[in-house]
Amino acid sequence: MVEGKINEIHGWAAKKRGLQVEPWSYKPRPLGEHDVEIKIEYSGICGSDLHTLKEEWGPTYFPAIVGHEIVGKVITKGEKVTHLKEGDLVGVGAQVLACLKDSCHACSHDLDPHCDKGVFTYNSKYADGAQTQGGYAEAVRVDASYALKLPEKIDPVHAAPLMCAGVTVFAPMLRKGVKKGDRVGVIGIGGLGHLAIQFAHGLGAEVTAYSHSPDKREQCMKLGATNFVDTSNKEQVEANRHKLDYLFITSNSKSNQYNEFISWMDFEGQVVLLAIPEGHMKFAPFEFIRSEVAITGSMIGGVNVLKKTLDFAAKHGISPIIEKYPIDKVNEALQHMEAGKARYRIVLTH
Amino acid sequence: MVEGKINEIHGWAAKKRGLQVEPWSYKPRPLGEHDVEIKIEYSGICGSDLHTLKEEWGPTYFPAIVGHEIVGKVITKGEKVTHLKEGDLVGVGAQVLACLKDSCHACSHDLDPHCDKGVFTYNSKYADGAQTQGGYAEAVRVDASYALKLPEKIDPVHAAPLMCAGVTVFAPMLRKGVKKGDRVGVIGIGGLGHLAIQFAHGLGAEVTAYSHSPDKREQCMKLGATNFVDTSNKEQVEANRHKLDYLFITSNSKSNQYNEFISWMDFEGQVVLLAIPEGHMKFAPFEFIRSEVAITGSMIGGVNVLKKTLDFAAKHGISPIIEKYPIDKVNEALQHMEAGKARYRIVLTH
Repeated sequence: MVEGKINEIHGWAAKKRGLQVEPWSYKPRPLGEHDVEIKIEYSGICGSDLHTLKEEWGPTYFPAIVGHEIVGKVITKGEKVTHLKEGDLVGVGAQVLACLKDSCHACSHDLDPHCDKGVFTYNSKYADGAQTQGGYAEAVRVDASYALKLPEKIDPVHAAPLMCAGVTVFAPMLRKGVKKGDRVGVIGIGGLGHLAIQFAHGLGAEVTAYSHSPDKREQCMKLGATNFVDTSNKEQVEANRHKLDYLFITSNSKSNQYNEFISWMDFEGQVVLLAIPEGHMKFAPFEFIRSEVAITGSMIGGVNVLKKTLDFAAKHGISPIIEKYPIDKVNEALQHMEAGKARYRIVLTH
Repeated sequence: MVEGKINEIHGWAAKKRGLQVEPWSYKPRPLGEHDVEIKIEYSGICGSDLHTLKEEWGPTYFPAIVGHEIVGKVITKGEKVTHLKEGDLVGVGAQVLACLKDSCHACSHDLDPHCDKGVFTYNSKYADGAQTQGGYAEAVRVDASYALKLPEKIDPVHAAPLMCAGVTVFAPMLRKGVKKGDRVGVIGIGGLGHLAIQFAHGLGAEVTAYSHSPDKREQCMKLGATNFVDTSNKEQVEANRHKLDYLFITSNSKSNQYNEFISWMDFEGQVVLLAIPEGHMKFAPFEFIRSEVAITGSMIGGVNVLKKTLDFAAKHGISPIIEKYPIDKVNEALQHMEAGKARYRIVLTH
């Protein structure tokens, strides 16, 4: 059996609920024959990290090292790993294990985030009870099937946000078949939204960006939007009703805004929920029936979809706009993100 | 100009809000060159009639003659009507006019119920302000494009409920492409539900009927269901989770039941709302994202879809189970329907 090189992994962990992490180390699980050990170079900050630290989505196992937009170099590989070698630059997203068997209902449909045997990158447990720890750390050991070799055309620091934010917006576009000429709306121009504009534009869609910050207009147009609607301007909103085939919701909207979103859709349009709002969503059923609109959700993406996301980004020059923080400034970075000031994604450098 | 034969139409109208109708007559609009005058033989009672009489969906213009599942004989036709002749047996559904132009966004997509120029069979107004009156009457004058010649194989009394209930359940099945082997759930085994089972079975789907009345099991199996779930039996419900591709909701479910419905769906399943519940629908967004389920609605069906509904019913021997009431017992019939005792659709005979 191959031994890992880093047998005490130093990282930044939360000890209790709240946006506060501190230096901490843990002993990683033994390096399995299908595993790789990765020396982390970059780690994106995702909204999920903040929700987890604040225990907004359920209980968190503390101490917790979050971070699931990981880029790093393979420094050790298990004896059965054939598609990677030491020195390869890889990305790891929000999931680190699934059965990936043809007999699995979820995995066989590229829905491995829903696999019963699925393990997430942090705040999740392997079958043996060992807890996963994420990317705000010097290293991580994961099953090699979830360590994706990065396309050469992608700058490694830019690859980090593609591992979660990128695949989260691109997976439903692929699944639903967004194509040339489709009218795509993106609401919430942040970490997810600014990537959604680029991916939809890459697919040939006509993209309308919705934001209550009119100062984001210019940036949205540069990213590929053909239209911008300032949601605080009633006339602009009114002039754009019933004009979308798809609306990707990337911001935490209030429960009573969904009827408004439905009114932006053309017949049979699809509203796709990518961010999880607090509380319940409420719909007036009559509006719903009248417009024959569908509302659906999507959660990250399977490993095959993640590969397609990276390849598509490389081919179309899709790249997140990032702010870099050194890992020892991680608490400052979390506060910056929490304040809604990140433009548009933060990457921690190790 | 051709004159109509019945220049004072006698029917049963509500004078004010409530489930009470009484004899009343009105002067019909002049018979237009594209219109037909129909002597009504049968008129189905639809849940919408009751909602309209009770003003549950908004204001009603009183006096109001409701009824939009009309079967009768053409007794006069306008000079430009070529596809119908006097004596033809026709059906009229919930809509009596739309532009039906290729340039119309709704009509060109077989979504004429959403046409801006659409006029509904009752409680609706023509462009000249004349109010439409429905089928609880001896006659009606409508645009001939919305008077459909009935297939010979369909018993006229059975055709009535197909004109609204039938097309309402079949339209979304066609639109969504329900096909052989798909797992279709139907909740609410009433006027719409007992037809939904038959249409889905006709399309080759495996149909599961959901009802809180276990005594409906046998009937559902006869209609083509392959499975029956008693929703008051927790074990049965539990054993059937995550097994549906489609769920057609034909009953007025409570706002808090939708999360439960989502849990019946397999990944990417579609919940289709055909009945309009009172109040708002509430969803827990996390469940929604986790299952990648879509929720959508559908409203009646366009005239082309209505033709397909009649042809499909004729070909597959699909027929509503009805209770007949003579028109002068209409108030009794309305009370029977209101009490939820109709098995499964009521047709008034004239």
